[in-house]
Amino acid sequence: VRPVACIGVVGPGQEASPQDVRHAREVGRALDRAGAVLLCGGLGGVMAAAVAGCAEEGGTSVGLLPGSDRSAAAPGLTVALPTGLGELRNGLLVRCCDALVAVGGSWGTLSEVALARRTGVPVVVLGGWSVRTPDGEQPLGEPADDPEDAVRRALARAAG
Amino acid sequence: VRPVACIGVVGPGQEASPQDVRHAREVGRALDRAGAVLLCGGLGGVMAAAVAGCAEEGGTSVGLLPGSDRSAAAPGLTVALPTGLGELRNGLLVRCCDALVAVGGSWGTLSEVALARRTGVPVVVLGGWSVRTPDGEQPLGEPADDPEDAVRRALARAAG
Amino acid sequence: VRPVACIGVVGPGQEASPQDVRHAREVGRALDRAGAVLLCGGLGGVMAAAVAGCAEEGGTSVGLLPGSDRSAAAPGLTVALPTGLGELRNGLLVRCCDALVAVGGSWGTLSEVALARRTGVPVVVLGGWSVRTPDGEQPLGEPADDPEDAVRRALARAAG
Amino acid sequence: VRPVACIGVVGPGQEASPQDVRHAREVGRALDRAGAVLLCGGLGGVMAAAVAGCAEEGGTSVGLLPGSDRSAAAPGLTVALPTGLGELRNGLLVRCCDALVAVGGSWGTLSEVALARRTGVPVVVLGGWSVRTPDGEQPLGEPADDPEDAVRRALARAAG
Repeated sequence: VRPVACIGVVGPGQEASPQDVRHAREVGRALDRAGAVLLCGGLGGVMAAAVAGCAEEGGTSVGLLPGSDRSAAAPGLTVALPTGLGELRNGLLVRCCDALVAVGGSWGTLSEVALARRTGVPVVVLGGWSVRTPDGEQPLGEPADDPEDAVRRALARAAG
Repeated sequence: VRPVACIGVVGPGQEASPQDVRHAREVGRALDRAGAVLLCGGLGGVMAAAVAGCAEEGGTSVGLLPGSDRSAAAPGLTVALPTGLGELRNGLLVRCCDALVAVGGSWGTLSEVALARRTGVPVVVLGGWSVRTPDGEQPLGEPADDPEDAVRRALARAAG
Repeated sequence: VRPVACIGVVGPGQEASPQDVRHAREVGRALDRAGAVLLCGGLGGVMAAAVAGCAEEGGTSVGLLPGSDRSAAAPGLTVALPTGLGELRNGLLVRCCDALVAVGGSWGTLSEVALARRTGVPVVVLGGWSVRTPDGEQPLGEPADDPEDAVRRALARAAG
Repeated sequence: VRPVACIGVVGPGQEASPQDVRHAREVGRALDRAGAVLLCGGLGGVMAAAVAGCAEEGGTSVGLLPGSDRSAAAPGLTVALPTGLGELRNGLLVRCCDALVAVGGSWGTLSEVALARRTGVPVVVLGGWSVRTPDGEQPLGEPADDPEDAVRRALARAAG
C-alpha cells in the first residue's frame, strides 16, 4: 500500500493578508478532497485557515506547534503536537512532508521554503515573495494559478 | 474545548515478547475506545501492535519515525511522520504526549521513560525493567494490572 | 563575566565562488582577532574557509556537522559536533549564535538567514542573494563593505 | 589526522552528592590531560564540576545548554551553546560524543545513558544507579575504579 501523501502548508501567521487566508482555506479543503493529510505549524493565519478548510471536509490535519502547550493549537486539528522546538519545528515540518504549498510570504515562510529547496522537497507557491540570485529574479517555487491548482501540482510533484 | 489527550505507547521493537505484543495491541484498542490519540515510534514490535489495535477500533494514531522513509511505517497508522531525527525522535515523542504507557523493557524504552520522569510526563508501566536508586529498587512508573488498567491510569494522570 | 560572543558564519559549500572563499577566510581571521568564537556548519566552501582563517590566528571554532561522522569535519576546527540532524542543524546553528555573517548565497544559506530574521538574530551580509517583499527588493541583512566591516557590524549587533 | 576525541560527562545537577562533584572535577582534569574535549550539559552539579576541572588544566569544553540564555552556562566553558532544545539536548549530547562518563545517578542521567546504550555509544560509570532486566541486575555501563580509570576506559572505548 502506498502511504497517504502528507502535504505541508506554510505561510504567514498574524500578518497573513485576507487573500492569503482565503487561499489557505481552499488549499485545506482541496487537500482533503484529494485524499492527502495536511501538515502545518498549527497556529494562526495561513495555518489556522488551512486547518479550518480541511476540517470542513472532515479531513485529517497535524499541527507541529513550536511551544509546549497543546491548547495553543488551531481549532479543528486532528492532532496537535507540542514539539517545544521553537522555530526549529519549521525544519521538522519540511522534512516530514512530501511537498510544500506556500501561501503568501514572511521570514518564517521563507525559512521553510528555502530549506525545502535545499533538501529536494517540491515547493508550490500561491503569491508570496521572490528571490534574486545570480540567475535573476525567480519565484520561490512552482507558481500555481489558484488553490485547486496548487494542490494538484503539489500532489503531482509528491508522487514524482 | 479541551484538546484530545495524546498518549504515547513505548516498548521494545524486534525484541518484544509475545506477551508485550498482546499487551500493546490491547492498549491500542483501549486508547481509541477512551477517545485518545495514540502516539508512538511507528516501527515494529510494541509500536506496530499498538497501532494495529488502534486501527481495529478505527482510531487515530501518529508514528514519529526515526528515519526519512515514510514507507517504513507500521501498517494502520493514520499519519506517519519521517522525522529523520534518529533516536532523538524518542525525546520528541515524550515531549508531545500527555502521558506514557511503557509495555516491556529495552534500552530505547528506558531512554523514553527516564526522560518522561525527568520532565514530569506521567508514566504507567506494564511489565518491563526496574531501576535501583539510593532509595531502593523501584518500577519505572506506576504499575498497571492489565492493558485496560494502564490506559485508565494514563488518562487519569494526563488529566491531572 | 560576559560570555564570549559566538558568531555564526554561513554560506555556500561546494558552490562557493572564489570571492566567497576569500571573504570567508578573512571573516574567520577577523573573528578571532576580535575575541569571538566562530560557529559554522563544519563542512566545505565558505565554512571550511572561515575555519581555516580562524585557525591561522589560533582561534576557537565549532562545527555543527549535519551527519554522524566526526571525520567529515573541515580541518582546523577546535570542536566538530556530528549532530546527525541533517539540514536541521542549520536551525540549531542560528539559535546558538549571537549574530550571523552570511557570505554569498545558496538555498541553505537562505534558510539560515530567513530563520535568523524570523527569530531576531542579527544578520550581516557580504554579497549574496536578495529578496523581494511587498516593501520592495532588499538585501537579506545589513550589508557590509568587507570582511573586517562584517565582523565589526556583527559584534556590534550581538552586543546590542 | 584523527579528530580529537570528544567525551561526554553526564550526571546529576543540583542533586549531585559531594562525592559526585569531587569525581566530576577529577574527570574534567583527566580528560584534558588525555587530550580530549569535554562535552556536557553546561549547567550545575556534575556538569559544572567537570568544566571547572577541565578549565584548571586549560582544557577545551563545550556546554549544550537546554535553554536559550548563554549566560546560564557554567563558568569556565570554552564554548556555551544555548540550544533551546530543553531536555532534548540530552540526546544531542549523546550523539555528539565518542563515549560517555556517567558520574552519579538521576532520571536525566539515566535518559542519557539509556540512549547511549541504545545507539552504541560506550558508557563508563562512576557510581550511580543500576537497572534490573530479565538478565538480572546490572550497572548502567562499564564500572570504573576512580576518575582516572573512568577517563582511561572511556578513551579506550572511544578509539575501539
